[in-house]
Amino acid sequence: MDNEDILNLDPVVHAPHRLAILTILISVKSATFMYLKDATGMKDGNLSTHLSKLEEAGYISIMKSFVGKKPQTACAITEKGRGAFLDYLDQMERIVKAQKVK
Amino acid sequence: MDNEDILNLDPVVHAPHRLAILTILISVKSATFMYLKDATGMKDGNLSTHLSKLEEAGYISIMKSFVGKKPQTACAITEKGRGAFLDYLDQMERIVKAQKVK
Repeated sequence: MDNEDILNLDPVVHAPHRLAILTILISVKSATFMYLKDATGMKDGNLSTHLSKLEEAGYISIMKSFVGKKPQTACAITEKGRGAFLDYLDQMERIVKAQKVK
Repeated sequence: MDNEDILNLDPVVHAPHRLAILTILISVKSATFMYLKDATGMKDGNLSTHLSKLEEAGYISIMKSFVGKKPQTACAITEKGRGAFLDYLDQMERIVKAQKVK
């Protein structure tokens, strides 16, 4: 029973770096690439890869714009991403609780 | 703060298949390879790989013996493994709680 929950954990959310990114995006309207980089301590390439994976899953949207002449990338969690993240938390809460009561 | 917890999650425990294996081993004295295979639905090779990884980390011990003429492999969680698993649960509990109170 526990095992089903564990083996069904959404791999897109479960990866620690992506979990860290979603944890930030869930509580803000949007965050810039630079902000996410600072907050997670990730390198450009690694952060880009994880953002692409989240975008491919439809969990975040990535918006490119200019601030003055500087290009800026901002990310926001989508409704689908919010749902996936909250489902993941519920699942993980059940997994932890099931162990703690033992 | 949350991010530190997330990015410090023990990768040996965090992988869903290994989390599933430890969830079983934490509550029994030992479990046979066949039992773990049935309980997790994993294939031989995949299960072997994850067990080796857990053994390398010192989180489980693997004992080979004979039952009659049949070789049998049994696995048991070690004290180190128990500590790592319980630390992981505490960390994950904090991560989930921090999100739930938002």
